[in-house]
Amino acid sequence: MRFFSDNAASVHPKVLEAVARANHVDTAYDGDALSKSLDAAFSELFGREVAALWVSTGTAANALALAALCPPHGGVICHAEAHIQIDECGAPEFYTHGAKLLLGTGEGAKLSPATIRQVAGAIRKDVHQVQPHAISITNATEYGMTYGAEDVAAIGAVARELGLRLHVDGARFANAVASTGAAPADLTWRAGVDALSFGFVKNGGMSAEALIFFDPALVEATRYRRKRGGHLLSKGRYLAAQILAMLEGDLWLENARAANAGAAMLARAAQDRLVHPVEANEVFVRMSAEEAARIRAQGFDFYDWAPGEVRLVTSWDQPQHEVSALAAAIAAL
Amino acid sequence: MRFFSDNAASVHPKVLEAVARANHVDTAYDGDALSKSLDAAFSELFGREVAALWVSTGTAANALALAALCPPHGGVICHAEAHIQIDECGAPEFYTHGAKLLLGTGEGAKLSPATIRQVAGAIRKDVHQVQPHAISITNATEYGMTYGAEDVAAIGAVARELGLRLHVDGARFANAVASTGAAPADLTWRAGVDALSFGFVKNGGMSAEALIFFDPALVEATRYRRKRGGHLLSKGRYLAAQILAMLEGDLWLENARAANAGAAMLARAAQDRLVHPVEANEVFVRMSAEEAARIRAQGFDFYDWAPGEVRLVTSWDQPQHEVSALAAAIAAL
Amino acid sequence: MRFFSDNAASVHPKVLEAVARANHVDTAYDGDALSKSLDAAFSELFGREVAALWVSTGTAANALALAALCPPHGGVICHAEAHIQIDECGAPEFYTHGAKLLLGTGEGAKLSPATIRQVAGAIRKDVHQVQPHAISITNATEYGMTYGAEDVAAIGAVARELGLRLHVDGARFANAVASTGAAPADLTWRAGVDALSFGFVKNGGMSAEALIFFDPALVEATRYRRKRGGHLLSKGRYLAAQILAMLEGDLWLENARAANAGAAMLARAAQDRLVHPVEANEVFVRMSAEEAARIRAQGFDFYDWAPGEVRLVTSWDQPQHEVSALAAAIAAL
Amino acid sequence: MRFFSDNAASVHPKVLEAVARANHVDTAYDGDALSKSLDAAFSELFGREVAALWVSTGTAANALALAALCPPHGGVICHAEAHIQIDECGAPEFYTHGAKLLLGTGEGAKLSPATIRQVAGAIRKDVHQVQPHAISITNATEYGMTYGAEDVAAIGAVARELGLRLHVDGARFANAVASTGAAPADLTWRAGVDALSFGFVKNGGMSAEALIFFDPALVEATRYRRKRGGHLLSKGRYLAAQILAMLEGDLWLENARAANAGAAMLARAAQDRLVHPVEANEVFVRMSAEEAARIRAQGFDFYDWAPGEVRLVTSWDQPQHEVSALAAAIAAL
Repeated sequence: MRFFSDNAASVHPKVLEAVARANHVDTAYDGDALSKSLDAAFSELFGREVAALWVSTGTAANALALAALCPPHGGVICHAEAHIQIDECGAPEFYTHGAKLLLGTGEGAKLSPATIRQVAGAIRKDVHQVQPHAISITNATEYGMTYGAEDVAAIGAVARELGLRLHVDGARFANAVASTGAAPADLTWRAGVDALSFGFVKNGGMSAEALIFFDPALVEATRYRRKRGGHLLSKGRYLAAQILAMLEGDLWLENARAANAGAAMLARAAQDRLVHPVEANEVFVRMSAEEAARIRAQGFDFYDWAPGEVRLVTSWDQPQHEVSALAAAIAAL
Repeated sequence: MRFFSDNAASVHPKVLEAVARANHVDTAYDGDALSKSLDAAFSELFGREVAALWVSTGTAANALALAALCPPHGGVICHAEAHIQIDECGAPEFYTHGAKLLLGTGEGAKLSPATIRQVAGAIRKDVHQVQPHAISITNATEYGMTYGAEDVAAIGAVARELGLRLHVDGARFANAVASTGAAPADLTWRAGVDALSFGFVKNGGMSAEALIFFDPALVEATRYRRKRGGHLLSKGRYLAAQILAMLEGDLWLENARAANAGAAMLARAAQDRLVHPVEANEVFVRMSAEEAARIRAQGFDFYDWAPGEVRLVTSWDQPQHEVSALAAAIAAL
Repeated sequence: MRFFSDNAASVHPKVLEAVARANHVDTAYDGDALSKSLDAAFSELFGREVAALWVSTGTAANALALAALCPPHGGVICHAEAHIQIDECGAPEFYTHGAKLLLGTGEGAKLSPATIRQVAGAIRKDVHQVQPHAISITNATEYGMTYGAEDVAAIGAVARELGLRLHVDGARFANAVASTGAAPADLTWRAGVDALSFGFVKNGGMSAEALIFFDPALVEATRYRRKRGGHLLSKGRYLAAQILAMLEGDLWLENARAANAGAAMLARAAQDRLVHPVEANEVFVRMSAEEAARIRAQGFDFYDWAPGEVRLVTSWDQPQHEVSALAAAIAAL
Repeated sequence: MRFFSDNAASVHPKVLEAVARANHVDTAYDGDALSKSLDAAFSELFGREVAALWVSTGTAANALALAALCPPHGGVICHAEAHIQIDECGAPEFYTHGAKLLLGTGEGAKLSPATIRQVAGAIRKDVHQVQPHAISITNATEYGMTYGAEDVAAIGAVARELGLRLHVDGARFANAVASTGAAPADLTWRAGVDALSFGFVKNGGMSAEALIFFDPALVEATRYRRKRGGHLLSKGRYLAAQILAMLEGDLWLENARAANAGAAMLARAAQDRLVHPVEANEVFVRMSAEEAARIRAQGFDFYDWAPGEVRLVTSWDQPQHEVSALAAAIAAL
């Protein structure tokens, strides 16, 4: 029973059906009818005009977004445990041509206005030091916590004050929306966000993420950078189809709710062992090696995260009985 | 009736079925069983041990290959009309960090040992000039011509003599194999090729190309570069499935033969108007604007290539009757 | 007797004296009084407010200028024989992060509005092709020809029309001014030039070139790029001193006139053998290998440029009698 | 009286004389007799064959060294307060094409084998994380501490064990040699160092630093990178002359001893206020704002470093009486 990553979850049947339905002839790259309908679909979702590009991975979405927001000689303020810092093998540095990630701290990989000010404030305003040009936050965070609309707005205010652009790594944006109940607009542009990596793959998609620009001026150069990065698929309609299927009837939200509900059940069972508040679909649990071995012996698969700590990730497609079984196993420790 | 690009062709049903079949839980990235079987599948096809990586686009495959073969301060000899020079928006420069494409000439976008020597010979061996480190050829070429086994071997010999690595952009490698009748091994490693971008998307695939390294020493750094380029999909099994379906029963070869046959029929009809020999699935035809308009009026869609010249591309899925109809229309001009 | 390159000429005594005079304590980098006076000195020379940065080499000046004018995904139109294309080992690609040089033709390494239009016109306006963002011309050219004020203005007009920035590689700008008699302003900003690499090293300087921005908005990012490129010397006052000494009393112009006069004398002696018009301080002369050997036997040192062609370069410090002797030797062939 | 930076010190008269003496005609770039003698001069100093390149700045030396030791997708372990991390505006990221600096801690900007292991040990060996390829230490450190021969050897041993290359930023290498009394060889190649940025500018030079490779295999590509970075001056002989003058009669060591002696005198006067042990020519002193103001009122110029902390830097050319005066002023606080 898989609790090691939502990256390995299955693809939602409606997404697969949409891929199959796209199998008629249309034009290549992103000139097809499906790709061309993305702007409108996301504009409706966000309640304002946005530009939306499909890409194959969240890493590509993040790196392209940062390249649009920060010059090669600039820096991006992010959390020291952000995915862009830890788990993308330097993709931000590659796409920005060597910009620096300027690292802040905070519980559960969350930045706050204070930690952002601290990072920015430590930098002299001269040419010897890399100057910050952007902030990137992850919502939901790498530790399963979320930024609510007020949290993002507070960071957006700091960004404006310091003259910085704001990016959200939303690999689990759906989980954040489902968890906070906030409107997508309130977690993004109304709070001052310039670009969002909107993840679908962990949430029932197959190979398509959306990169959303709330500032239309930013998208044009990114179209070239996407091509230049090898991310302009010649049969783009199969990516657009996935995303549209996820948006249709708010499937993205329904799936995220399912995953979050699984995590919440585990959190209740492990309430005395939680390392962080559980606000999305990841549960970090204190557990001895011996205990972890006992759980694994019952057929559960998950990662050791740190000494005495394991990570449990629930997915949209997690059978209820598997979650219940794991919750029971933890409770029985 | 689409004759404008094989990029817009449909996906072969067996590929779609394979994608659907992959929809069970396995591990993420390229650790799944399907991804892990690629090395063996291609090793069998090529008759020697090779390393095979999936990527989403031919541009990514080409750019990653060149980055493995050429340092940032080096150059890659290619044809002035090569896809990597003309149609990838600088992806080779991006992935190699600024290597220079050193341009040669030759009919139908084909390089010869002589033109390669000419390009290399014009470069002084000092630090002021970018030194060549690799050669890249496209087979079949951007103008629908092919390199036979002897052609490639002759270029491979020049490469070894000059100390250069050799890459093949095989976006239409299948068409080249189908056309020349040569063994895949004879068009690649036996002829001195170090890396091959093996295209599937134009030939019935959806979103998966293979990057093949014949020199195992080259693959390791490329695994990092692929991740860093945002090309390590978290659900890689759906890409591997596509490629495996294309290899199964030599579907790739069958599809390429179908596309080539279509082009051959058009070539016969246009034999007095051909700009280049037709050796794969592209047909360049001299045609006045007025003639082109007359053909288009009959429902055929294709690109103007140059004044008085059009490009017709056939695909694996082209209905026989459409090809016959176009051939008849041309013959009737 | 050296006629192989003005790069190897000596440093003017006034420049050496200025360097020695700078040897008092002041602050570091470019915060010293000498460095801070450069803007004013060049503003006076050009008759408008400009921003001026010292750098150590013409290659650095060119590459930094292009990085300011062209994004990584863009292209710079230049001559196929431009120094930035041929003799800088890819520095433009390095500093621009992989922009492409888009090559035009023309006698004596001169571009014309027509050739620029031709290069730009061949590029489709889509994301698959690298779009031009700038033009770079060399004045005087690599073959000792010059652009007059009208030539530059005509190119400036094309640049504005096509939305391109304009850079001048002025490694021998002094020779161009001396030759054309045009005002520095007329060869630059009045003609639409955005940035100028103003060379001093070939012309009596030691290790300082000036990078001039006529558009003040461009300089800010370049200050960071200069530091990042390792070109912000900690004792910058010794570079500023060199440049100020060259500007003092128009020493730069006097030196260039001397070099040009030497070339003119050689040109008269070789008038039936000239490959290009001689408009600056380089003379390309048709000469058989046997003839060249005969000249060399008389103690003259110069480069073979092409089969049957040699290059003679005169410098500011060339003794009159050496030039006369070479002229006589050529006339006597 | 300047105590704010050795970067602003004057140039030693012997260096200026050597520059003036170089003012005869020789060939360009680094083909002249002076430049060509650098390898031999440094080989003698280090007691083994080395390759030595002049560059204009320590930033260029460091960045070129790191580019030789670490691929774009790799990382360099260094101290969080290293100059390459803090004060080079991302030059390492620029020259390495986006490698990551992996930050360790330790008093006085010194790394230890333990902190290096800690940084390396926290990185998973998979393609998602940037893998370390090199270590860079600064000797003397940014806080005026030194690594003795045993310290470097211990780090060299860790480097070999972990398969990492080792670089020394020796902007104040002379001060480290003068302070530790160790042989240059013992602080470098005998301890496992692959490349050294050997600084001269802070120590009496004008505009020339030396980049030393102890592994000859590394130098070749660096020659191209130096040109590509715009750091191959056309009149290189004036840089070589500076360095040779500094080596002549161990002027570099004599100057460093003078600077260190000044710092030692200040350290004695401030012994109860020292933030770090004083082992080179920098003295970090706890001092209230009011005290600092009092010292400044006596004509001393220096930087505030942190709240309640100032930095005093002594130089080779510091008049004895200025140092004594400052020492007395501090003692009198």
